[in-house]
Amino acid sequence: MDNADSVGLRVFSLNCWGIHYLSKHCPQRYDMIGDMLCKEEHDIVLLQEVWSEKDYLSLKQKLGCSHPHSHYFKSGVIGSGLAIFSKHRIHDTFLYRYSLNGYPYMAHHGDWFGGKAVGMAVLKIGSLTAIVYVTHLHAEYCRDKDSYLPHRVVQSWELQQFIRHTSAGADVVILGGDLNMHPQDLGNRLLRTSTGLRDSYLETAKFDGCEDGMTLIADNPFISKKDLAPFEKGIRIDYIMFKGSSKVAIYCDLMSTTTGSVPEHPFPYSDHEALTAELRLETHAPTETESDRKSGNPASALVDIVTEARTEVKVGLHCAERMRYTATRTGVMGLALLFLELAIAAVPWLALGAEQPFPRTSFYMLAALCFAILLTTFLLYIFYTMELKSLQGAEDQMRLAVGSLQEKLRGFPLAQPHNTQRRPPEGLEPSAFDPEE
Amino acid sequence: MDNADSVGLRVFSLNCWGIHYLSKHCPQRYDMIGDMLCKEEHDIVLLQEVWSEKDYLSLKQKLGCSHPHSHYFKSGVIGSGLAIFSKHRIHDTFLYRYSLNGYPYMAHHGDWFGGKAVGMAVLKIGSLTAIVYVTHLHAEYCRDKDSYLPHRVVQSWELQQFIRHTSAGADVVILGGDLNMHPQDLGNRLLRTSTGLRDSYLETAKFDGCEDGMTLIADNPFISKKDLAPFEKGIRIDYIMFKGSSKVAIYCDLMSTTTGSVPEHPFPYSDHEALTAELRLETHAPTETESDRKSGNPASALVDIVTEARTEVKVGLHCAERMRYTATRTGVMGLALLFLELAIAAVPWLALGAEQPFPRTSFYMLAALCFAILLTTFLLYIFYTMELKSLQGAEDQMRLAVGSLQEKLRGFPLAQPHNTQRRPPEGLEPSAFDPEE
Repeated sequence: MDNADSVGLRVFSLNCWGIHYLSKHCPQRYDMIGDMLCKEEHDIVLLQEVWSEKDYLSLKQKLGCSHPHSHYFKSGVIGSGLAIFSKHRIHDTFLYRYSLNGYPYMAHHGDWFGGKAVGMAVLKIGSLTAIVYVTHLHAEYCRDKDSYLPHRVVQSWELQQFIRHTSAGADVVILGGDLNMHPQDLGNRLLRTSTGLRDSYLETAKFDGCEDGMTLIADNPFISKKDLAPFEKGIRIDYIMFKGSSKVAIYCDLMSTTTGSVPEHPFPYSDHEALTAELRLETHAPTETESDRKSGNPASALVDIVTEARTEVKVGLHCAERMRYTATRTGVMGLALLFLELAIAAVPWLALGAEQPFPRTSFYMLAALCFAILLTTFLLYIFYTMELKSLQGAEDQMRLAVGSLQEKLRGFPLAQPHNTQRRPPEGLEPSAFDPEE
Repeated sequence: MDNADSVGLRVFSLNCWGIHYLSKHCPQRYDMIGDMLCKEEHDIVLLQEVWSEKDYLSLKQKLGCSHPHSHYFKSGVIGSGLAIFSKHRIHDTFLYRYSLNGYPYMAHHGDWFGGKAVGMAVLKIGSLTAIVYVTHLHAEYCRDKDSYLPHRVVQSWELQQFIRHTSAGADVVILGGDLNMHPQDLGNRLLRTSTGLRDSYLETAKFDGCEDGMTLIADNPFISKKDLAPFEKGIRIDYIMFKGSSKVAIYCDLMSTTTGSVPEHPFPYSDHEALTAELRLETHAPTETESDRKSGNPASALVDIVTEARTEVKVGLHCAERMRYTATRTGVMGLALLFLELAIAAVPWLALGAEQPFPRTSFYMLAALCFAILLTTFLLYIFYTMELKSLQGAEDQMRLAVGSLQEKLRGFPLAQPHNTQRRPPEGLEPSAFDPEE
């Protein structure tokens, strides 16, 4: 296996939980993370929730020797929290901010202020062009009644679109981050099926770490068991995914996670576990690998998944429409109240039976209330309209994609076994969305 | 020239000026536009400022036969206004919304509410994959004192990033739209130099239309001459650009614009002139064309342009910082006023020399004013912080790009004449940003 065309690539991903004053032991944990990264010398380090730029800069200083190249992705009010450190030169970066990302008035959840996004970096590894993505999707606060599900599905949709459309020239594609989705969740299936990205936990030859590859575990002292219920032991929501091309085959030799504690330290690096994937890139002429054969015909599976996603987006649409209607109705009531008040004040005989004229204090307080209602409902109306446009846009794109896939399926029946082979090697493993040749 | 490998492609672009109740003769003009498109049967129609989805839907119905495939891009509060109609099947679409797009409180300019973006569609033209972009950048309201310039420069930066990163798999790349930039404006140079896109007006073999290819002209009855000053005759701000690949060479045989009037109609299609480019796609093995040679070494020119863009973004940064500082200071003053008022009301002896206690009406009015100040400055603070993050993000990416380009230049001196030839044909004409082989 140790031939001249084989290159090793160690990829690391961690949600750093870097909320100053709220996350426990934040500065100490950053020290630990910096020391470990400096020692381990991974090729590519993908970090999430580095909310403070100061923390990024101090990490950058610390990792100056081991990882001379880095980028911090800025977005939203607080930032995207995304950072990348690399041993290999970063030639270019790009950021795509998701069109939907929670609600600004849900300030205690905070996702909206973070400006969740996917960051992209173009790296040169020897003669190969690697495109590396780091992302963090909207958190799931309540699995049973997840009001953010449509937002997360749209984020997955946009993530797969972004990856598909920007990775066409790549020899190696790597995605790392906190997807906030379980392995079999809709958004996760959508992402993997449409991009052809492979989950390193499922692909690895050898695994070392938490049971079932979990990355949010009950054994982590920063995690309250209550939050994990009904998944007592933990959940797997952080991922390193990869994809080769006709030029490069990628294998995962070893995948590992931390296990809720760090030797010689009183607490772990974060509330999430860190992931490391040891990949092996083999440059050669295109051959059909084991994984290609396993993937079968992605188009038919993708039709079902995209249809499921459309249903979820429609649920979100109805919800947003209801919310906008409520905001409009409240606004109209506020306006009616204001007019009524003005009428009563202007025409005294309207206040029938009142012994005194309209008390001035009450008048002003009521007027202030009316204006507050009008302003709030106006802002909410604008916000929900933007949410509706984004949801409708995603739904339109999904409908178009399903139509295109179905046409492709009509042309190429499901039973056709050599579907993945007939496409000429254009530089990438086939994606189900590729237009027909 | 009429050999079997040559395909004609007619591309149309028009800013429709579709603001109901504000734009003159809106329904009649849409009727005219629909009739003309139906008759002309262009291959690809790129429309901007189709603000109402109803107008899109009625156009879609009318063009059902001539242009069976279409897509409307939704974004922001009102929409992106972008639409595409095509004779060729649209396989996939994607939308990138610019991170900066004016200010919500500049409601009379309205750009913020439109959610300006670039829409992308993947088309199959015979055996060729064409990626078509339609966009509309922030308007220029005052050329001498253009406070939106940093926003438009960042939009150009994001547009070129989006096109570069998403067009790698394309045989044919086409961009149409209202760039709101003159031919030699910074953003325009940045776009063309970094993507390698060619302006069909400059490339065309034959031109038929307004002098200097102008698209906003004094002869158009919807245009007031005052707005055009100091450009008495008009300006060129709408474009159709194109780029071939190693597989396809593109030539522009004829470029035409409307000239401010439409025969047999009392008024023109819009306040902008419509553009039509008749392109010829020739499929063959890669050869160095006239235009390739003209482009010379794009990296050194690009370093200068990106440096200029960085300077402009820095100006925007200083401005946004100043605005945020002003908002913060006003907010702090509002808070101080509120505390002072509460103190006076709570501790009567503070109102030294006052004959009466604090009048209740004034108290409530002042409190309402304080709250209004606090809320407004809070919202402004959040908005300016987001603007700052976007500007900083663009500046970071530009710095990285300049570094990468400079390193490339150090490796390959300016005088090296065969720079455009040494790159292997990877499926696209070389872009200055491509990492070295």
